[in-house]
Amino acid sequence: MSALPSDYFAVVLAGGRGTRFWPLSRRAVPKQCLSLDGGPTLLQRTVARTGLPAERVLVVTGPDMVDAVRAQLPDAQLLVEPSPRNTAAPIAWAALEVERRGGAGCFVLPSDHVVADEPAFRAALAAAAQVASRGGLVTLGVRPTRPETGFGWIEAGPGAGVDVPVRRFVEKPPLAVAERLLAGGRHYWNAGMFVWTPRALLDAVDAHLPGTAAMIGRLREGADIADAWGASEATSIDYGVLERAAGLRVVPVDFGWSDVGSWTALDEVLPASEGGVSVARAVVALRAEGNIVHAADKLVALLGVHDLVVVDTPDVLLVARREDAQEVRALLEAVERRGHGGAT
Amino acid sequence: MSALPSDYFAVVLAGGRGTRFWPLSRRAVPKQCLSLDGGPTLLQRTVARTGLPAERVLVVTGPDMVDAVRAQLPDAQLLVEPSPRNTAAPIAWAALEVERRGGAGCFVLPSDHVVADEPAFRAALAAAAQVASRGGLVTLGVRPTRPETGFGWIEAGPGAGVDVPVRRFVEKPPLAVAERLLAGGRHYWNAGMFVWTPRALLDAVDAHLPGTAAMIGRLREGADIADAWGASEATSIDYGVLERAAGLRVVPVDFGWSDVGSWTALDEVLPASEGGVSVARAVVALRAEGNIVHAADKLVALLGVHDLVVVDTPDVLLVARREDAQEVRALLEAVERRGHGGAT
Repeated sequence: MSALPSDYFAVVLAGGRGTRFWPLSRRAVPKQCLSLDGGPTLLQRTVARTGLPAERVLVVTGPDMVDAVRAQLPDAQLLVEPSPRNTAAPIAWAALEVERRGGAGCFVLPSDHVVADEPAFRAALAAAAQVASRGGLVTLGVRPTRPETGFGWIEAGPGAGVDVPVRRFVEKPPLAVAERLLAGGRHYWNAGMFVWTPRALLDAVDAHLPGTAAMIGRLREGADIADAWGASEATSIDYGVLERAAGLRVVPVDFGWSDVGSWTALDEVLPASEGGVSVARAVVALRAEGNIVHAADKLVALLGVHDLVVVDTPDVLLVARREDAQEVRALLEAVERRGHGGAT
Repeated sequence: MSALPSDYFAVVLAGGRGTRFWPLSRRAVPKQCLSLDGGPTLLQRTVARTGLPAERVLVVTGPDMVDAVRAQLPDAQLLVEPSPRNTAAPIAWAALEVERRGGAGCFVLPSDHVVADEPAFRAALAAAAQVASRGGLVTLGVRPTRPETGFGWIEAGPGAGVDVPVRRFVEKPPLAVAERLLAGGRHYWNAGMFVWTPRALLDAVDAHLPGTAAMIGRLREGADIADAWGASEATSIDYGVLERAAGLRVVPVDFGWSDVGSWTALDEVLPASEGGVSVARAVVALRAEGNIVHAADKLVALLGVHDLVVVDTPDVLLVARREDAQEVRALLEAVERRGHGGAT
């Protein structure tokens, strides 16, 4: 296991809801609390792959999710946001908490992504920490493998190696643009993973987010988070800080990352089985292919079907065409309109 | 309710297995023991629609199925076949039992079919009993509505009305032939429903099935069915008796009959719902149509899918293309080959 700097903390962002994995995800069981492949949950894997001990892991979450998070990570230190405030405020608060614990830096990590190559992931964090320890804000840039229109892209300035300046951010480009970015070789996906010292981040907050800076000031004076929280801006770390900050660096990485943004992304995550990929007691298929099956405790029999998403839970069964899987949210709204809110 | 002759008995054939409704049907739960629409089972409905009291209903079944049948029809008189012997032997035995009970005639009825128009069904039985009481063997001939290649057809001789002679049987014709039969107007589907006096049937057995006649002889002499049974031929009533007997009559009927031979037949049986027809706690569908859903206690969400058969049970989930639903048997064999025999 690659050694991470012994004085860095993981700041795991576990406040999100995420409806795209309905019916597996529910109000009380957000995406990061799911096991998509039948093993540990995305959140548990996020913490485990850092290799950091519990005393150097801070998990940011919301009041509704405390029980679910604590059940999965009994030893974790939780930072419970009084209300949803996007990512800038909780990340700033976490930086302060890392500073208070004597930490040298923060690895800011989403809790609902997948990483295939964990040694490469830790090596990337270690490299990024070296860059961050010189004082700048560092974002990990995932080497793109397709002209993805659903992600933000990061344009690198001149330079090579693990440490290049960020020239600008490109938000969710149209396909033709994404194809150019992919071909040009100077753009990376913004995976929402950041590395910095508390000082560097809090200086940038001072410069760009006066409300959040005021919140940090009150916390330093001993205020409770419930009292200080309201001063902060409800904005994302990307928009509120990174797109305005000077001296931002990008560390290109390549560790088999996926944001598993919808059921179709499970092609890259689930083991292959008859008829496609699956988590199930067993799958038996005749003339079936390209299906994504999640039915943890069942025998699933597929006959002549292809390119379906089949998700079975104790009270809800979803059968969708793969190409429509992005519309699960619309389906969920229909379920609520029909008065089946208990199933959402 | 039309009155049936007060001295006729229903002989309900409930020995069949039937794999085509897997995974709802199982070894221990054959098709006739299923509720396809969420209400009473096919067997319960078969008995109920005769309107006959329990003392005039005989249910023929096998030893493995006694418990299931008794659970569904606590008052029924059961004739338990010592071993599977096709239909001629149990029907002959049942005729003897009807005779012993002083019955004037038998309505021989499959236990796993559906009848939409029950008053018309009872009227047809009453009409057939009038014909049968004159001494011949009577088969009900269902007026065909499509060029079905999976059924046996009955060719009627000259005559009109409720009582015409049978000229011959046409077994599972190729499509071109079935189309001619349908257009000609002189052919009916053999629904496996027969009406006769015990005397007429047992005389025909004497004439054509010497082994089964010997079995009847031993039973008359007081032998136990377990001892007499082995003498009988293992053949169907159609092949062993009806295709050889003289003076066979057909009563044309039209009472919304379906043999519900596969999942796709449920189009005619299940209530319409979003996305097709279903038995489910609820179905919510977006851009879905033509689907057949059986998931009694679930919310089923369909997104962009069409012409699927979706069947959910506690341990097995089937997702099939409608046009492949006839191949459930092959799928079941694959399930057994893969070592999941517990699910069959």
